[in-house]
Amino acid sequence: MVQINGNFKALSENYLFSEIAQKVTAYKANNPDADVISLGIGDVTEPLCESVIDAMHEAVDEMANRATFRGYAPACGYDFLKNAILENDYTSRGISLSSDEIFIGDGAKSSLGHFGDIFSVDNIVAISDPVYPVYIDANVMEGRAGWLLSNGRWSNIIYLECPPEKDFAAQIPERRADIIYLCSPNNPTGSVFSRQQLARWVEYAKKQKSIILFDAAYEAFISDPAIPRSIYEIEGAKEVAAEFRSFSKTAGFTGVRCGYSIVPKELVAYDGNGMAVSLNALWRRHQSAKFNGTGYIIQRAAQAVYSEEGKQQTAKTIAYYMNNAKTILKGLKYAGFKAYGGINAPYIWLETPNNMTSWAFFDKLLNECQIVGTPGIGFGPSGEGYFRLTAFAKAENVEKAIERIKKLI
Amino acid sequence: MVQINGNFKALSENYLFSEIAQKVTAYKANNPDADVISLGIGDVTEPLCESVIDAMHEAVDEMANRATFRGYAPACGYDFLKNAILENDYTSRGISLSSDEIFIGDGAKSSLGHFGDIFSVDNIVAISDPVYPVYIDANVMEGRAGWLLSNGRWSNIIYLECPPEKDFAAQIPERRADIIYLCSPNNPTGSVFSRQQLARWVEYAKKQKSIILFDAAYEAFISDPAIPRSIYEIEGAKEVAAEFRSFSKTAGFTGVRCGYSIVPKELVAYDGNGMAVSLNALWRRHQSAKFNGTGYIIQRAAQAVYSEEGKQQTAKTIAYYMNNAKTILKGLKYAGFKAYGGINAPYIWLETPNNMTSWAFFDKLLNECQIVGTPGIGFGPSGEGYFRLTAFAKAENVEKAIERIKKLI
Repeated sequence: MVQINGNFKALSENYLFSEIAQKVTAYKANNPDADVISLGIGDVTEPLCESVIDAMHEAVDEMANRATFRGYAPACGYDFLKNAILENDYTSRGISLSSDEIFIGDGAKSSLGHFGDIFSVDNIVAISDPVYPVYIDANVMEGRAGWLLSNGRWSNIIYLECPPEKDFAAQIPERRADIIYLCSPNNPTGSVFSRQQLARWVEYAKKQKSIILFDAAYEAFISDPAIPRSIYEIEGAKEVAAEFRSFSKTAGFTGVRCGYSIVPKELVAYDGNGMAVSLNALWRRHQSAKFNGTGYIIQRAAQAVYSEEGKQQTAKTIAYYMNNAKTILKGLKYAGFKAYGGINAPYIWLETPNNMTSWAFFDKLLNECQIVGTPGIGFGPSGEGYFRLTAFAKAENVEKAIERIKKLI
Repeated sequence: MVQINGNFKALSENYLFSEIAQKVTAYKANNPDADVISLGIGDVTEPLCESVIDAMHEAVDEMANRATFRGYAPACGYDFLKNAILENDYTSRGISLSSDEIFIGDGAKSSLGHFGDIFSVDNIVAISDPVYPVYIDANVMEGRAGWLLSNGRWSNIIYLECPPEKDFAAQIPERRADIIYLCSPNNPTGSVFSRQQLARWVEYAKKQKSIILFDAAYEAFISDPAIPRSIYEIEGAKEVAAEFRSFSKTAGFTGVRCGYSIVPKELVAYDGNGMAVSLNALWRRHQSAKFNGTGYIIQRAAQAVYSEEGKQQTAKTIAYYMNNAKTILKGLKYAGFKAYGGINAPYIWLETPNNMTSWAFFDKLLNECQIVGTPGIGFGPSGEGYFRLTAFAKAENVEKAIERIKKLI
């Protein structure tokens, strides 16, 4: 008799954003004339920039011609893209990596979701609370989470406290953690690690022989030059950290699909005998067997993000979204909300008024303002009483949404 | 201390085709003037058809415009593509499915590779010998294979015999298998299941409460109208089979990346209490948490394969490759080889001469004819003494290769 992976039964039936989408669809069906504004799922609204569009047209034409047609891409990415990443995202910041430490994939969600496959199920996982729900979901599926407790936490997961009085920075736990997920700029709180805070995490990981999975999907939104954009800006981080990045928000690629992971050759985990094993080789083997490379046209699109024009054009779009963030933050504060983030990140994190639960506030905002946000509890138990709004929206909708919220209160 | 997934240590260091690529690169470095012809990795050589190119240009332009820009795709695919698949690949063949039983992905390799995640590691897996190596690799990583025996087989895997005297059709085992991988047209032997043979497998799976993972990546190459292209042509198959297909070979998408899996709602596996669980919901949950949808432009490209022009244009390219297959088969037989396949499949499977090992024949063919093929042993222990040639090549190279082989013997 064929048996399912029992861990799936423990999982909530819906992925957070699928659940929100279902609620919104139902609301729209009942209120066909409602002008619903989404500040919820965090999907980009601005079109791809000209450089990317040009590069894709050119690549499509290459695929039409026998002499320039490309079949299977290298499983871990084309050198033209890996070299552009190296030069622009790392070498220019004083970080030395080689191109075979970069793995091109179809987005940070897939890479982060599957990276756990190369680790034993017995590792103890530490996850910030609140944080992007994919880390928990992936570990539940893989059997590292244990069972769901009545307080909304999983029995085997170490939840890293992110107290508001410490700017929601994930605090180093007292217990030993083997695999630590860190996200900076953080989704959903919008907080960022300072160099000093990140250095303490690297030191902790070294001492514990742990690994940090550093999700830097929002690094392009950092405005403060003192904030590290890569964990490799911290000395020694290559031995203890893998980094995950994406073009989804940087260049509006949510519907294009491209991202990359960095797995330095120094980065190790240990086998049953305590011998160090290079994770670079393990991840390469995984990607070769379970992935067939990111499409050629897509990799050319990503390369164009690093052209001089591409950089200018994407910077302009990022500034557009960050102006939205400013509008939201200012409007919320004017309306009397306690609000955080929105300065080095495209997310604004607010306290729900009058101790409302985050789903109750979701319903209120949808029903009374026709605004879709994301309930904090969807990001972890400590997200209860909070709510996330995203700056990924059309500026005119952001203005309208803020006017509606001001009237609500 | 962070621990690796120990199953990876059991895995051979290289994925078969990476190993071949390394050998070829080394040969070319030592013989820079050699005119090496690849009939090895099975990558397409003909450009994308006009319909697909037009559709991609159009979709790229939509992404340049704020009014038509698309962000995140639905995790399991756009309806426009799912409906085209339904209508053309299923309804037209008398198979009734609904669009939420179709899951668009980035290729059959990823889907087949990750589909195992929704099953318990305790299931007994049966795999044809020889067959596409990804099935074994994925199960080794997931911990279902056991250990590697000296005969090249994994201790926990049931190897399905595919005897030449039975046209290499996978034979039903005497032991119970929970998860059965079947591939028709088969890679590498080029054999196909008749309706009767497939019906026996469906009957077996029902009796054993097993599941069949049916890899139909090469269905477009079937020329005999009596051969089933989908396992759902067999009555009752929806309760016991998932099907995997790809645009890689059908429409030359190896560098574009699109495929799909079919998981009917009737299809179940069992939980620890023996209760049936729908796999459609499980796979949807997996894809929602670990995948962010296939790119919009790519899905539009796949949709164009089903337009009237698209169908004609791809049929022409398939005929081109199948003409290559004919040339290879005829040439090999003329040269005295025992050769199989090549009629309903783009692969030709030949017996190595004089009982040579398949890697020895690989070296001989590379060194003496500058032809790259694939050693049979790479597809499983019973592939020893055999060799795969692919019809995915330029016709002029196929002619040249066959002339060289004729001279060799």
